[in-house]
Amino acid sequence: MTPLHNDTFLRALLKQPVDYTPVWMMRQAGRYLPEYRATRARAGSFLDLCKNTELATEVTIQPLERFDLDAAILFSDILTVPDAMGLGLYFAEGEGPKFTRPLQDEAAIRALAVPDMQKLDYVFAAVASIRRALSGRVPLIGFSGSPFTLACYMVEGGGSKEFRTIKSMLYARPDLLHRILDINAQAVAAYLNAQIDAGAQAVQIFDTWGGALSDAAFQEFSLHYMRQVIGALKREAEGRRVPVIVFTKGGGLWLEALADSGADAVGLDWTCNIAQARARVGDKVALQGNFDPMALFGTAEAVEAEVARILAGFGHGSGHVFNLGHGINQHTDPAQAKVLVDAVHRLSRPYHV
Amino acid sequence: MTPLHNDTFLRALLKQPVDYTPVWMMRQAGRYLPEYRATRARAGSFLDLCKNTELATEVTIQPLERFDLDAAILFSDILTVPDAMGLGLYFAEGEGPKFTRPLQDEAAIRALAVPDMQKLDYVFAAVASIRRALSGRVPLIGFSGSPFTLACYMVEGGGSKEFRTIKSMLYARPDLLHRILDINAQAVAAYLNAQIDAGAQAVQIFDTWGGALSDAAFQEFSLHYMRQVIGALKREAEGRRVPVIVFTKGGGLWLEALADSGADAVGLDWTCNIAQARARVGDKVALQGNFDPMALFGTAEAVEAEVARILAGFGHGSGHVFNLGHGINQHTDPAQAKVLVDAVHRLSRPYHV
Repeated sequence: MTPLHNDTFLRALLKQPVDYTPVWMMRQAGRYLPEYRATRARAGSFLDLCKNTELATEVTIQPLERFDLDAAILFSDILTVPDAMGLGLYFAEGEGPKFTRPLQDEAAIRALAVPDMQKLDYVFAAVASIRRALSGRVPLIGFSGSPFTLACYMVEGGGSKEFRTIKSMLYARPDLLHRILDINAQAVAAYLNAQIDAGAQAVQIFDTWGGALSDAAFQEFSLHYMRQVIGALKREAEGRRVPVIVFTKGGGLWLEALADSGADAVGLDWTCNIAQARARVGDKVALQGNFDPMALFGTAEAVEAEVARILAGFGHGSGHVFNLGHGINQHTDPAQAKVLVDAVHRLSRPYHV
Repeated sequence: MTPLHNDTFLRALLKQPVDYTPVWMMRQAGRYLPEYRATRARAGSFLDLCKNTELATEVTIQPLERFDLDAAILFSDILTVPDAMGLGLYFAEGEGPKFTRPLQDEAAIRALAVPDMQKLDYVFAAVASIRRALSGRVPLIGFSGSPFTLACYMVEGGGSKEFRTIKSMLYARPDLLHRILDINAQAVAAYLNAQIDAGAQAVQIFDTWGGALSDAAFQEFSLHYMRQVIGALKREAEGRRVPVIVFTKGGGLWLEALADSGADAVGLDWTCNIAQARARVGDKVALQGNFDPMALFGTAEAVEAEVARILAGFGHGSGHVFNLGHGINQHTDPAQAKVLVDAVHRLSRPYHV
């Protein structure tokens, strides 16, 4: 493999000294970029784009051509695993992801199994292709949805505001939900390990919906299974540690528990005070975040002020990867993303001397 | 006024000794009750129901006939104040509240003023009528949206998932948002004081959307104005203290700050661990919550187990009002709500001996 020219991101995740705070943006390859929209139009559907190695590589690299980002992230969907399980993923126009065969009866749940990873070869092919295209420029992040977040979509059949179906199962038939989560945890671990084998240099677990749970249910139905995944991951590849980032949106109350999950880093949304978060997790993990993506709709000065505030909150030393607290909004002006990335690099240097 | 027969709710809010943990449910007068749906059908629209003194009284009392609740809450909408400001509240079928004249230009914001409280006489008439109908059975809670939560609807023009319009204003023109919030704070204080004059025996400020803000923005744009409201409230009526409850949904990270707001009690959603919450707020305030309304879709045994878990979490002594962490879902079986209310009363007695 080509040597890595910029390993600032990997070093910050391991709290090793860096010259500046590294930055990437969740959903950095996305609809806010006109070049993404052009490639997407050529690909056909969103899923066609995920499954086309060449085009998935192209959109992954696009934001790196515009912005001085410190990491690339695999272009894919979080629901590839349940799709490989046979649930039939599709995207209804303007409605987000849906499954044609959601898990809504006991027989379907009993029949659920860890999918053959060969069904996800298109993902691993994309990882390998992106690594070649990156040619050591920055590290590549692989990712998966958390077992619980996948289960939300698998049981609800799509996105949800209230999670009534999965929470009804959780409170009425916890045994069934535990069965789904156990299968999901095994599948997610195999999936992330195969991404690491294909060249992913760090992995992130997106627990997008863990924050919808009660404190007790989060521990039992989300955190427990993320721990199981993390415990089963390969942690070294190409002679380097492969850091694991865990991100529970709305999980600021559970930082200590997340820091104890075995992950190297914990993602923060924008509701957390990063100074308090750092004090709470201590030396256990690095932190990633915590810029409100909607602040990119302010003035350039406001973007810089927010960057400065977050950097000052974290303070001196390594262990912070700058990021948004959620995916970048499709209506964002790319020029504002550039203001953010450049401000992080420029304003963070004094904290690393 | 008739003497109050059951003051357990008011005593718990002030951390005075009680025999059992009092309970009420947010949105307890609502669509999950067939008798509510029948009255609503007679009234016409939702707003017609809010404005009809007799029918608003009827639906407020309905849940008390079914369940052994320790408080009643005024039946009204959180957006009555901006409606009185001239923004034109209406309810699009299945879409939630909307305004015909949202605040989307500077001239409209400059023209905004505290409304004449006479425009809200229908609310105060409902308070007085409900007090008469209650006849001292349990206390009546008055309420308002928080200045920031009202501003969300006033600027977005309706509900929102991402709050792009108001956050753009917050980061690009904070001066305009501060002007709206300042007017809202004055209006909310006048509105709650008029409810207290009309007979409300406790008041709750619903900060439904404060949890969408960053840590820094929450302090500046939501908490600051709630403090301003609380500081301007009448705290005694009919020779008794009128307790103030502040509830920021998703505000678990900010409990210490909320406990310092001047309120007597702080509402918790279900993501908080109530034992930790109690330790964090100490003796400053009582706590209200924190049952996940979706747990009512479990078995009766699961409902009782959740009640037991929350009661044990709070532990011995007064200072807890049991409640849901959000409004009861319209699809809830009323029999499950009865299981909850009865379980709270039965299972809480050992914590008050």
